[in-house]
Amino acid sequence: MSNLKIGIIGFGTVGTGVYKTLANHDGIEILKIAVKNINKPRSIKLPEGLLTDNPFEIINNPDIDIVVELIGGVEPAWEYISTAIKNGKHIVTANKELLAKKGEELFNLAEKYNRVCLYEAAIAGGIPIIMPIKTILAGNNITKIQAILNGTTNYILTKMDMDGASYEDVLIEAQKLGYAETDPTGDVEGFDAAYKITTLATIAFKKRIKLENVYREGITKVRQKDMEQANEFGYKIKLIANASIDEYGNADVRVHPMLVSKNTTLAHIDYVTNAVELTGHPIGSIVLSGPGAGEFPTASSVVGDILAIKAEFGKTDYMLPMMRCHHETTATPIKIEDTYNKYYISITAPNAIGVIAKIGTICASKNISLASVLQRGVSENNTADIIVITEMCQERLIKEVVNELDNCTVNSLIRVAE
Amino acid sequence: MSNLKIGIIGFGTVGTGVYKTLANHDGIEILKIAVKNINKPRSIKLPEGLLTDNPFEIINNPDIDIVVELIGGVEPAWEYISTAIKNGKHIVTANKELLAKKGEELFNLAEKYNRVCLYEAAIAGGIPIIMPIKTILAGNNITKIQAILNGTTNYILTKMDMDGASYEDVLIEAQKLGYAETDPTGDVEGFDAAYKITTLATIAFKKRIKLENVYREGITKVRQKDMEQANEFGYKIKLIANASIDEYGNADVRVHPMLVSKNTTLAHIDYVTNAVELTGHPIGSIVLSGPGAGEFPTASSVVGDILAIKAEFGKTDYMLPMMRCHHETTATPIKIEDTYNKYYISITAPNAIGVIAKIGTICASKNISLASVLQRGVSENNTADIIVITEMCQERLIKEVVNELDNCTVNSLIRVAE
Repeated sequence: MSNLKIGIIGFGTVGTGVYKTLANHDGIEILKIAVKNINKPRSIKLPEGLLTDNPFEIINNPDIDIVVELIGGVEPAWEYISTAIKNGKHIVTANKELLAKKGEELFNLAEKYNRVCLYEAAIAGGIPIIMPIKTILAGNNITKIQAILNGTTNYILTKMDMDGASYEDVLIEAQKLGYAETDPTGDVEGFDAAYKITTLATIAFKKRIKLENVYREGITKVRQKDMEQANEFGYKIKLIANASIDEYGNADVRVHPMLVSKNTTLAHIDYVTNAVELTGHPIGSIVLSGPGAGEFPTASSVVGDILAIKAEFGKTDYMLPMMRCHHETTATPIKIEDTYNKYYISITAPNAIGVIAKIGTICASKNISLASVLQRGVSENNTADIIVITEMCQERLIKEVVNELDNCTVNSLIRVAE
Repeated sequence: MSNLKIGIIGFGTVGTGVYKTLANHDGIEILKIAVKNINKPRSIKLPEGLLTDNPFEIINNPDIDIVVELIGGVEPAWEYISTAIKNGKHIVTANKELLAKKGEELFNLAEKYNRVCLYEAAIAGGIPIIMPIKTILAGNNITKIQAILNGTTNYILTKMDMDGASYEDVLIEAQKLGYAETDPTGDVEGFDAAYKITTLATIAFKKRIKLENVYREGITKVRQKDMEQANEFGYKIKLIANASIDEYGNADVRVHPMLVSKNTTLAHIDYVTNAVELTGHPIGSIVLSGPGAGEFPTASSVVGDILAIKAEFGKTDYMLPMMRCHHETTATPIKIEDTYNKYYISITAPNAIGVIAKIGTICASKNISLASVLQRGVSENNTADIIVITEMCQERLIKEVVNELDNCTVNSLIRVAE
């Protein structure tokens, strides 16, 4: 049988890992790699003529079967991918932003041209998650996801916790080590995790989730002091991507810092490791964890997708039926104000006398039960630092509580995972 | 399109879970269920005529496309499955013992008749592991597996650790709760885990592992005192299924109790939960954890396999190419005496004077380095309890050390995970 022919667009860290990994696999030939700058020095020796600075030498090449898109971002990736599909190419991509913003168009186009578009590498790097959900877990009704999907923020939060360091100091260190970008916004403000949970929830719930309905809060306001206090109560603070759906198709999808109990697996997922907990019926709960990024782990997923296409290429009129996009309906979004959560609240009160009574009264007036309250002494200037952890209550009501705590400073309001 | 028609042989816990789960899936019809006793009262109402006490009404039924085998054991399961394949049926099975003992024959027969045999439920219950290894992880060279594959023993070890109870007391409790069988041999002596790691390593390493080459030790000799001492050194004791393979195809596959560092995920897999850690290139390490048994989790895997067959049924001449058996070679076994491990040794010495020197001298004479030594006081009758943890050394040599410790009682010798 003739070789399966591949073109790669984008040759950074992941592309290099894919190139090295495919070198060990027979029957696959990389015909062209499109890069921005042909003359840039590379860490590996490449055959003459393999590189091009014109992606259309791949997209319009009639010999190429699969286009592997590794440049990221919406444009020009969408132009490249959509043209490639129209030209009859199958697609393998690691582009989480494109999937979150253009997923519906992308999969509709792929179905129209009967081409597959695989994207295991876009979510949680090397962790097998998309293909397992689409195949061996297909009999399940998955209703809940809790996940750590961004290695940069998990690294920062882990270092803050372990070293007792501030967010600002750890960010600088992470930037020096290459774990955070010069402009860290995409990671630390939760955009990256929001892209990933949008696609992951869409696949798991078999209903489309729209990125604009995903609530998002980053980690920039998490104080080292909150971590200390969380630890005392038996929690770690993690940036958690949450998604849940009820039986009527109402979906609550969001990314924000959370206190997670030390009794859970997620609390022990440290540094750049990612993890995904899926809950549904009949399976119950499973946790899949591993490297969420990096040259080789991400290459594992890209190459897995390529091999899945290779296995069925030319042997059937409708390849990889389970890996296609099967849902046509969109979930109804639940607004963050309407969600129910437990909350950790750090309060500084100007006058210690009566403040616990005041907090208790305000919460009681809204039927909010308190799980834990801690006031440790009174400072010299008669202010008091108080930590409250509530039972489940509606976000709208907790915001009212915060507003009604006049005279007090609310230092932090962080949701607590059930 | 006409329904996919299924026959189920065996209708215990898992079968019932499969029946209930398939009720939610269109396009699949259960034609017959074979049971030992048709008149036994069942927890669910079944359509008239669904049950039979003759499995050949399924195996020889020309309308049935898939035979789901859920009776376990080698015979008569092998007769049923092999006849069904010859009759053109695809197979879904949860039978770990049959796979470990007859895997090669089974997959050769299935290939000969161009039928698929899927078995996700046989290993680690609901955890997606076989299909991910065969598909999205296919680009990897997996070289190491460490896994908790038996819920009964993990439950017993967890309870011993948490409650400070003896093996015997916890076993009785586990039997009362239904977590252990009346004759617990298959679980507590490690047979169940040995069956599972045999198949799991065969799949992961792409070389056949023979059950008779899998070293096996159960948990019956693990003392509560060992757990206490392990805890002090930062370890938990778990029944670990290990497999590793070198670049020449030499495989070391075994099941035995191990001290695992509390810094690892496996140390925190408690009660009946299972977990599989896979290490290889390019992925690095991933850990997949979840329910290893039970009606619904196991049904998730059985139904996942059925849906995979359904997706390609009738659409191609060679279904599910990635899920076929691809290896023809057998790994070369490494004998347990030739393996290298760290060891935990609990020693009682009759005379405290000079005993540490003696242990040190014997170990040094064999070039064995000691990582930790702990002697806590001397008892009234002048005996001393000593714990030694070694660095890596060959099993053959540590056995010599144990033999040469004359006058001392070696209470326990347990391997320590790296």
